[in-house]
Amino acid sequence: MSEKAQPTYAKKLRLVVIGGVAGGASAAARARRLSEDAEIIVIERGPDVSFANCGLPYHIGGEIQDRGKLALQTPATLKSMLRLDVRNLTEALDIDREAHTVRIRNVETGVEEDLAYDKLILSPGASPLTPPLPGIELPGIYTLRNLQDMDQIKEAAAEARHVAIIGAGFIGLEMAEQLIHLGKEVALVELVDQVLPQMDKDMVQAVEEDLREHGVELILGDGIDGFEKMSDGLRAKLKSGQKLETDMVILSIGVRPENALAKAAGLELGARGHIVANAWMQTTDPDIYAVGDASQTTDPILGGPTAIALGGPANRQGRTAADHIFLGDKAQPYPGSIGTSIVRVFDVAAGVTGFTEKRLRQAGVDFGKTVVSDFDHASYYPGATHLTLKILWDKADGRLLGGQAFGANGVDKRLDVLATAIKGKLTVEELEHLELAYAPPFGSAKDPVNIAGFSANNIRSGFVQPVYSLAESPANAQVVDVRPPEMVALKAIPGAINIPYPQLRDRLGELDPARPVVTICALGKTSYFAARVLAQRGFDAFAHVGGAKVEPSVQQ
Amino acid sequence: MSEKAQPTYAKKLRLVVIGGVAGGASAAARARRLSEDAEIIVIERGPDVSFANCGLPYHIGGEIQDRGKLALQTPATLKSMLRLDVRNLTEALDIDREAHTVRIRNVETGVEEDLAYDKLILSPGASPLTPPLPGIELPGIYTLRNLQDMDQIKEAAAEARHVAIIGAGFIGLEMAEQLIHLGKEVALVELVDQVLPQMDKDMVQAVEEDLREHGVELILGDGIDGFEKMSDGLRAKLKSGQKLETDMVILSIGVRPENALAKAAGLELGARGHIVANAWMQTTDPDIYAVGDASQTTDPILGGPTAIALGGPANRQGRTAADHIFLGDKAQPYPGSIGTSIVRVFDVAAGVTGFTEKRLRQAGVDFGKTVVSDFDHASYYPGATHLTLKILWDKADGRLLGGQAFGANGVDKRLDVLATAIKGKLTVEELEHLELAYAPPFGSAKDPVNIAGFSANNIRSGFVQPVYSLAESPANAQVVDVRPPEMVALKAIPGAINIPYPQLRDRLGELDPARPVVTICALGKTSYFAARVLAQRGFDAFAHVGGAKVEPSVQQ
Ligand SMILES: Cc1cc2nc3c(=O)[nH]c(=O)nc-3n(C[C@H](O)[C@H](O)[C@H](O)COP(=O)(O)OP(=O)(O)OC[C@H]3O[C@@H](n4cnc5c(N)ncnc54)[C@H](O)[C@@H]3O)c2cc1C
Ligand SMILES: Cc1cc2nc3c(=O)[nH]c(=O)nc-3n(C[C@H](O)[C@H](O)[C@H](O)COP(=O)(O)OP(=O)(O)OC[C@H]3O[C@@H](n4cnc5c(N)ncnc54)[C@H](O)[C@@H]3O)c2cc1C
Ligand SMILES: CC(C)(COP(=O)(O)OP(=O)(O)OC[C@H]1O[C@@H](n2cnc3c(N)ncnc32)[C@H](O)[C@@H]1OP(=O)(O)O)[C@@H](O)C(=O)NCCC(=O)NCCS
Ligand SMILES: CC(C)(COP(=O)(O)OP(=O)(O)OC[C@H]1O[C@@H](n2cnc3c(N)ncnc32)[C@H](O)[C@@H]1OP(=O)(O)O)[C@@H](O)C(=O)NCCC(=O)NCCS
Repeated sequence: MSEKAQPTYAKKLRLVVIGGVAGGASAAARARRLSEDAEIIVIERGPDVSFANCGLPYHIGGEIQDRGKLALQTPATLKSMLRLDVRNLTEALDIDREAHTVRIRNVETGVEEDLAYDKLILSPGASPLTPPLPGIELPGIYTLRNLQDMDQIKEAAAEARHVAIIGAGFIGLEMAEQLIHLGKEVALVELVDQVLPQMDKDMVQAVEEDLREHGVELILGDGIDGFEKMSDGLRAKLKSGQKLETDMVILSIGVRPENALAKAAGLELGARGHIVANAWMQTTDPDIYAVGDASQTTDPILGGPTAIALGGPANRQGRTAADHIFLGDKAQPYPGSIGTSIVRVFDVAAGVTGFTEKRLRQAGVDFGKTVVSDFDHASYYPGATHLTLKILWDKADGRLLGGQAFGANGVDKRLDVLATAIKGKLTVEELEHLELAYAPPFGSAKDPVNIAGFSANNIRSGFVQPVYSLAESPANAQVVDVRPPEMVALKAIPGAINIPYPQLRDRLGELDPARPVVTICALGKTSYFAARVLAQRGFDAFAHVGGAKVEPSVQQ
Repeated sequence: MSEKAQPTYAKKLRLVVIGGVAGGASAAARARRLSEDAEIIVIERGPDVSFANCGLPYHIGGEIQDRGKLALQTPATLKSMLRLDVRNLTEALDIDREAHTVRIRNVETGVEEDLAYDKLILSPGASPLTPPLPGIELPGIYTLRNLQDMDQIKEAAAEARHVAIIGAGFIGLEMAEQLIHLGKEVALVELVDQVLPQMDKDMVQAVEEDLREHGVELILGDGIDGFEKMSDGLRAKLKSGQKLETDMVILSIGVRPENALAKAAGLELGARGHIVANAWMQTTDPDIYAVGDASQTTDPILGGPTAIALGGPANRQGRTAADHIFLGDKAQPYPGSIGTSIVRVFDVAAGVTGFTEKRLRQAGVDFGKTVVSDFDHASYYPGATHLTLKILWDKADGRLLGGQAFGANGVDKRLDVLATAIKGKLTVEELEHLELAYAPPFGSAKDPVNIAGFSANNIRSGFVQPVYSLAESPANAQVVDVRPPEMVALKAIPGAINIPYPQLRDRLGELDPARPVVTICALGKTSYFAARVLAQRGFDAFAHVGGAKVEPSVQQ
């Protein structure tokens, strides 16, 4: 019945796994399915294994009421289900590669011992950055990584009126949302001049708006400089000189790989300190594997090293390491991570897959881009909401290099489609004809992903000349706002004259044929239609891509 | 700024489009963007153009209150926006290919005229099947294709107590749902022994259950034989002899391509009467294009002809035809349709992309398959619901050939991911590592699509021997139900002995090592774990794939 003969992989070996959560527990679980006879020992410093890191903010905010739900497995269940020898509250101190032993210490008793291994998997994760600033050791300053951190924050938050969150990445935003749900006053400080630095600035404005609407005080383009104790609470000093009085601080400014063991053992580290691993997650010592947040793999889009600190990669890398230990080169290699990620902030979700504009610029890639907005499902069916999608492609061959999205609904779906398209090495031409599921509650006959493909190809083929912000308009251009006058009345576009699109063909005489024209509308669709009319009537016509929705001079 | 020089496509030609809805209106709209100077005439028999066919059931059921929302465009808006010459209430009677003219008739005045064309696009759609049964012409028997049909059904339904729907495809199910919402008694009759014949039987049981739970009387494996008038209402006679007394009948047993014009003009038709079109949607006459439900293109998965009657393909084929008329061979060819479709029925959504098991069997393909169930998003985050996914692959190379899904949430997302994976010619191995967006409200660290990939590869590599239904168990097998006893108490699996998975390793002695063992659980996960334990202990072990959730002997 099986497609191939059933092999026996059982090997009597001792596998030691350091770190018992996402990557480590996944590796150990898969290892057991590969071999009933292997001795599998999991070493975990903390009291908990297999917990849902990603759920921590939601217990603090009360959305996940039952703390127990976050412990997906316990040492006891891992024993009964998988016969794993889980040693929690045990720290790995040192690896002796020569002797094939790990020195471990029971953190309660302090007792140390040497544990022999045949194969070793490192999944120590990454620890929150805590820069050596004045006052960083003061009580009331927290980071969030595990259940204990969570408990402390939850307890402190119960007493606090005001919370300052430093760092507006995914975790910072989740915490901001949850603390607002708890009725706290929240200030969110971010060094760069936007939230979600993982995304491009034009794609996070809706998130910023939503945060502000829900009462979060956003302090962008300003960093933390130190902390002071006050009689009651803390004072956070920012680089700008601004001072924030608060009851507690949550630091979420990023993580650093836990590389101490690997470093001391002489394993190769990458430029940012991650443990270098090959496609089977093997380090430079073939008996030692490194997976998860602490490891570095290859970027499958442009090549080169990449380190992505996310749950999915950690889980699947752990599985790959186990496979390679028991299957050898018959194991499927890990294909690298592209960094698909998403966050919900109140009524908006936003996320990214693959490369952003920022990162492509850094990489020196000659890329094209478009931004489109359309409904998440058929506009005529109740509940349709706007979704905005940005895609980036390689100008040389049209290959999709990255996507970003925000909106109330359907953001995850479009990111997943784009992530799959990247995996399939699809070009933006091929996005045009993706045949996505359509019935009125779920989509549209032309999905936003198709529309993004159309728009990309209209740009790529020279069918329309794009302008991405009015500031970048060609010299001496006349800007024509083709929206209906009612819309213009609500929010005018600085420097534009209004000729509603349906009247355009009859009012060409109002435009100077000797000057370029830039058309702009609400979402980038009608501006494109208008530019097509103008181009065919001899104008040097440009269409604003994405419309007022993403135009900086309108958004600010 | 553009990637290529901006070409001028403007051609002074006369384009005539027959059919003014999905394919036709899309073709005409794109044609205008390609050429301001072309004369574009749209001929539509009915009063409406550009309406939302797919929304019709939801206006009947009252979900879409405003009828006007279904008219996406009108002749007037198409004129003001796109300068289209839309002639509604005008029927095309005949094509003179030699003379390049179409004979048209105003259906109100009866006046006929010959309309010259340079290029002709046919998008006449498909009409609902109305088999020549006794009584088929009786009042009270309806089909649903356009706004007029909708109005009639809505009016009749207001008076009806009982409605019989014949045909349980997508439209039949949507109508059943909407009529139940209106408080009607509904009987749903389907010739084959399952609803949604477009899907495999194992993947529609949840839909059938949901229909029954909401009060729909399901009559499966029985066809319609004729109708009789009663003093009050109608009697529908079924092939089995059963008689259904009802107030009205909705026939939704499929559609046939409107090929009369094409046939009379001598254009090549396919085996099922569709108009044969090449990759640019050109018929066997290079000046005539055919798109949408009436046309036939190439199946991109296995090759060979395919005709898919869905809104997305119609829209995009219309666009392709326009492109080819104005851009010639520089136009992107249409890549063929794979038939991604979805329906919501009360609390469940179900859908399919690519090939089903049924169709692969017909095509004689040697395929593998798996069915997995998991949560639509992180189990620990509120609102997680089960989702079931089936994938099918080519045994020769592991290439994904099709997918099906059902569940309360996230069905559309997984179908879209699988549709994109098919487009990218991904193998099931590659599904393992799709990097999909994960935060607790949206997904899991291992998405159900990843899990399907894992399971597929566990089967493909011979790591586990699959059994797809207990009836197909190997001869003399002992069936072991590894679920917890509490679950077994709720619904036992016929003929199985219960050894809960955590006890299995200690109770191997209860099994006969000389006989094969089939393990089964609720969803197919623990049975796999158990089979791995048994296989390594020398048993000829098989895991039931998909679990009790899809096992016929449990479901019936
Ligand atoms: C608050 C929060 C929210 C998150 N949200 C998301 C999300 O929505 N989506 C997403 O994809 N990812 C999210 N992540 C990231 C995700 O949790 C990580 O990428 C993932 O857990 C990494 O797995 P890992 O195995 O590498 O490390 P971890 O899961 O952190 O596990 C490492 C373990 O190793 C132990 N350890 C380290 N050194 C030693 C030692 N010397 N001896 C013994 N034990 C040791 C640590 O105690 C730790 O428990 C979130 C993380 C946090 C903290
Ligand atoms: C109730 C219903 C629900 C649906 N739900 C979905 C769904 O959820 N998802 C999905 O993808 N698809 C759905 N569809 C299918 C989708 O609407 C069709 O696939 C699509 O409309 C086909 O486009 P078309 O241009 O080929 O034909 P149509 O949209 O049917 O347009 C053809 C037009 O041509 C006109 N015509 C025909 N012959 C002549 C002639 N000789 N002269 C003049 N005019 C002529 C007809 O009057 C008709 O208006 C649904 C269809 C219906 C009826
Ligand atoms: C829970 C944990 C120990 C993993 O254990 P696991 O057994 O590998 O993972 P799952 O429970 O998801 O099960 C996956 C296995 O079951 C199989 N499976 C799952 N559903 C199945 C189904 N319906 N049918 C058949 N097989 C199925 C998969 O193929 C896979 O087996 P394989 O790896 O041998 O192919 C580990 O993921 C963990 O500790 N997670 C919590 C921490 C974490 O991930 N944090 C970050 C995110 S919050
Ligand atoms: C409405 C209808 C006339 C189509 O008109 P259309 O102008 O081609 O389609 P849309 O309104 O979706 O707009 C798509 C165009 O706008 C462009 N566009 C859309 N949003 C855009 C954005 N945000 N930025 C830039 N361009 C955008 C697309 O690229 C496309 O142009 P192109 O084809 O020249 O590349 C036709 O689809 C129709 O009649 N639909 C109703 C019937 C039907 O589809 N039934 C079945 C489903 S219910």
